[in-house]
Amino acid sequence: MLMKHVVMNCRLPLLSCANNCMLLASSSVFRRQKFFIRSLGGSIDYHKTGKMQSVEVDAENIIRIITPALDQSRHKGQAGKIAVIGGCREYTGAPYFAAISALKIGADLSHVFCTKDAAPVIKSYSPELIVHPVLEESYSVREEDKKIIASKVLGEVDKWLERFDCLVVGPGLGRDPFLLDCVSEIIRHARKSNIPIVIDGDGLFLVTNHLELVSGYALAVLTPNVNEYKRLVQKVLSSEVNNDDATQQVLSLAKQIGGVTILRKGKSDLISDGDTVKSVSIYGSPRRCGGQGDILSGSVAVFLSWARQHIEAADLDSNPAVIGSIAGSAMMRKAASLAFSNKKRSTVTGDIIECLGKSLEDICPAGSCSL
Amino acid sequence: MLMKHVVMNCRLPLLSCANNCMLLASSSVFRRQKFFIRSLGGSIDYHKTGKMQSVEVDAENIIRIITPALDQSRHKGQAGKIAVIGGCREYTGAPYFAAISALKIGADLSHVFCTKDAAPVIKSYSPELIVHPVLEESYSVREEDKKIIASKVLGEVDKWLERFDCLVVGPGLGRDPFLLDCVSEIIRHARKSNIPIVIDGDGLFLVTNHLELVSGYALAVLTPNVNEYKRLVQKVLSSEVNNDDATQQVLSLAKQIGGVTILRKGKSDLISDGDTVKSVSIYGSPRRCGGQGDILSGSVAVFLSWARQHIEAADLDSNPAVIGSIAGSAMMRKAASLAFSNKKRSTVTGDIIECLGKSLEDICPAGSCSL
Repeated sequence: MLMKHVVMNCRLPLLSCANNCMLLASSSVFRRQKFFIRSLGGSIDYHKTGKMQSVEVDAENIIRIITPALDQSRHKGQAGKIAVIGGCREYTGAPYFAAISALKIGADLSHVFCTKDAAPVIKSYSPELIVHPVLEESYSVREEDKKIIASKVLGEVDKWLERFDCLVVGPGLGRDPFLLDCVSEIIRHARKSNIPIVIDGDGLFLVTNHLELVSGYALAVLTPNVNEYKRLVQKVLSSEVNNDDATQQVLSLAKQIGGVTILRKGKSDLISDGDTVKSVSIYGSPRRCGGQGDILSGSVAVFLSWARQHIEAADLDSNPAVIGSIAGSAMMRKAASLAFSNKKRSTVTGDIIECLGKSLEDICPAGSCSL
Repeated sequence: MLMKHVVMNCRLPLLSCANNCMLLASSSVFRRQKFFIRSLGGSIDYHKTGKMQSVEVDAENIIRIITPALDQSRHKGQAGKIAVIGGCREYTGAPYFAAISALKIGADLSHVFCTKDAAPVIKSYSPELIVHPVLEESYSVREEDKKIIASKVLGEVDKWLERFDCLVVGPGLGRDPFLLDCVSEIIRHARKSNIPIVIDGDGLFLVTNHLELVSGYALAVLTPNVNEYKRLVQKVLSSEVNNDDATQQVLSLAKQIGGVTILRKGKSDLISDGDTVKSVSIYGSPRRCGGQGDILSGSVAVFLSWARQHIEAADLDSNPAVIGSIAGSAMMRKAASLAFSNKKRSTVTGDIIECLGKSLEDICPAGSCSL
């Protein structure tokens, strides 16, 4: 199921209806749809050299459109339930950053599925997260027990899977082969249930070597940094990174993996699902402290969930993975910029997370956003 | 022992006493009693459709009346000793939120009884709490040891039980069958000792399946959210939730469980002990991040203790479970509203806890409250 990201048909409620409310609602839907299309910009542009150029989107408008209204009658979970698959003996910061970012942007619940060693540490960072100590690494599993343990791990995750609006796979996952086998199975199950998946960090290491895990899955977003992108390009396109024709290359890459969305992080973030290429260049920070990619993955997860809700409610024909990537990228860049203006060279990832709330409020005040 | 929540008789000290101080004290008690009754509003109202309607109470006045005076001569413990039964390998945030909220509202001591895995993590959130690693889950207990271990767990809790003014059972308890069996026994012991019990989260899962644990116990408060309420209604009334006649339904539910108090959380909180239905609609926030229910349970526990002290001291004939629920609900809603006005969409549970102190101070300044 590959969704197109351009609004092809505006299936409006009957405009001939005499009811004023309906008419008003319809025109409001229509206006919002037009606004949505305008914010996304046109199709791919071409430079006078003939090279393909990405289209800079109005990312702040997109955030305003997809961020759900806050309403006293809503209940827990309706603003999003996110799960991060990551965290092992070695890495605990990354899954925390991704999961807490999701909450601070406005998700209602944020879970982490990690190894038994990592869990108490991640829990201790914040009581706000629900941390499940279910993953296992090879060092704690005997060869003959692997099958049973793998099935137990999967059972533990499966109990929860259907509840989530989006998974983030990879922050602090590590590269233990047994653990990665289990995570491959989790990805397969999530895909069967049509749960969107944002893949970053060691999750990208996994899928670069097992492209079939995500190939053709329109609800997958890969968020590679410079090195991860290089490995993906080498593996998928059997070539080197071409910065002179970056737009064409990211488009080919996304198309080659069957229409997954690629969010290539850089000075400008490039986003493609193989059909078009959008860029987000607003804000940003020159500080490159580790952990910012984790914020981005949590941010994309929340906005992807909201974009999906919005697209379904407004009956649009857009790709929520692209819309979520655009919004997630802009949110991260704005928060990084705010944090840098306060903390300069000493900015660390936690400072950026603390700026997520104000960044969203600046773009889309809590009292004014609407579905 | 089903206590009535409407003041039936104002057993005042002898007004004929010539002593001026006594007279003054008596008229002050009398005034306070009148004030108390007025704050609680009348009985159940009926809408013109004939449907029962809850009575909106003056919750802030109730808070002012029951919050004990602060006095240099009082000693540790007199403002309340609360214990939370909850916290397991999977959940550690919820019991922390409930226990720290009790302290931040003004209880003197806040304990947590949790599993051995959960204890170090909960301890790490705050040195303010007393955390007992005494509960056990099935995975750490051999079948043949279960009886001995259960009796040991109960012994550990029993050592403390009589000291507490209120228990909160359920935040982050999990659903392990062996653990829930032990907790059932703890509830039975607490009930024998007339210790009030607030039941939330997985505690509600337990009592919904074992109604006899709370049935007929007037000092029990159940605090269900949307889904927990649905399960309770299905189990107890063998019907579905009826939002058109919510007042009648919560009244029937509370009556059917023998006069326990139900605090149904929602846009307006509905509170019933089977005799009348009160509502609290002031303040509140549209943010639905997980953990707010835990604050509420800790808040109700403190106010229930204070209401009980007040009712005994003033010789009133009110139901402390209803009074505590009203005050706890209003306190939570005010803190959530304050936090939201600061943090908007990025509000998390910890932000609300940080607003408990100011919320209580706004309603009832520390220098002015009196018993």
